[in-house]
Amino acid sequence: MASLPATRASRRPSRTSSRASATRFDRRLGHILDHATEVFCEKGYEGASMRDLSRATGMSLAGLYYYFESKERLLFLIQKHTFTTILEKLKALLENVTDPERRIRLFILNHLQYFVSNQQGLKVLSHEDESLKNGLSSEIAGIKREYYRICLELMEDLRRKRNLDFNTRTAVMSLFGMINWIYTWYNSRVDGNAEVLAERMGNIFLTGITSGGSGRKNRK
Amino acid sequence: MASLPATRASRRPSRTSSRASATRFDRRLGHILDHATEVFCEKGYEGASMRDLSRATGMSLAGLYYYFESKERLLFLIQKHTFTTILEKLKALLENVTDPERRIRLFILNHLQYFVSNQQGLKVLSHEDESLKNGLSSEIAGIKREYYRICLELMEDLRRKRNLDFNTRTAVMSLFGMINWIYTWYNSRVDGNAEVLAERMGNIFLTGITSGGSGRKNRK
Repeated sequence: MASLPATRASRRPSRTSSRASATRFDRRLGHILDHATEVFCEKGYEGASMRDLSRATGMSLAGLYYYFESKERLLFLIQKHTFTTILEKLKALLENVTDPERRIRLFILNHLQYFVSNQQGLKVLSHEDESLKNGLSSEIAGIKREYYRICLELMEDLRRKRNLDFNTRTAVMSLFGMINWIYTWYNSRVDGNAEVLAERMGNIFLTGITSGGSGRKNRK
Repeated sequence: MASLPATRASRRPSRTSSRASATRFDRRLGHILDHATEVFCEKGYEGASMRDLSRATGMSLAGLYYYFESKERLLFLIQKHTFTTILEKLKALLENVTDPERRIRLFILNHLQYFVSNQQGLKVLSHEDESLKNGLSSEIAGIKREYYRICLELMEDLRRKRNLDFNTRTAVMSLFGMINWIYTWYNSRVDGNAEVLAERMGNIFLTGITSGGSGRKNRK
């Protein structure tokens, strides 16, 4: 990850133990980001202080400033880690699958699998979408654009191959609304797991765009 | 409105002019709430100070404390005003319309008509859903429950009358996701007005639940 503290390399004790220490470091970083996510979720980005983050992560205030510089950098790392992970998982899932409807179902499933077990993360991403500035913001925007572009291509592919008639942008954005809004209501005891939800939402959405379209006879 | 300052009644100059002054007052209140919405939208509820709100509304800090007591009360008034307005408009629209599909289309249209011209309000409502405490929170929760309940009934009515097979809770929440998420992407130049959007989303969603269902043959 490009955003590891620059001082780390020089601290490595030896070549052989570097992988083990990198893993430990990644785990520690993941732990810190999880706790920071909780704080941003509860207090909002503006309302959270470095002191709150220090308390929640168990890292000293000095250490937090030393390694992360600012709470903006922590928010950046949360966003980058999340979107990169989702994107990589998605690409792996889509490999070798050609049916356009099945590909959209995999997109939905991948997104829900990640966020059903990470609702706080989804809330922070949704609420702090514009909190990053300049360089950090544009790096995240780039990853998000790629994710959006993949979804748009999946949709256009389906539309072309099935000769369907719907507005791709509205369809993509409607789908993102359906699968992102879950952070406000999803309850595993009531709503089943990510697979159940992905099937139900996939049924509504895919029937909606494949059987519908602007030429639908009973449209009002 | 139950939440007007209590001192107001004693200030009324006379019976005859009371309606005019009430209208002026309502307009002034609406103006203050609009500006407060902008501040909450930009800075987040936690990040906004009474000083920010005073600057944006053009009201003195003392006046703001005198009439609204706290920024929590301002957020409460924004939420109450919004949900009450939407609910009243919806009830008026649904009167005398019996077709269950048409009723859901009117629900979608009413929601989009309000929020397409008030995206900042939608963002504040979504982001500050849990910022109110105790009494204020439960009054808003009551209005929101009624709104949710109406949508659920519309959905169950359609399901019963058409003998359809879908999960009502997932359907209602998917619909709320579609129509609420617009605050992140809607652009009037690209996406048309509320009527265009309501028709497109209505087509996707209604085809999705009326032609689909868990018994769908091409389900994956």
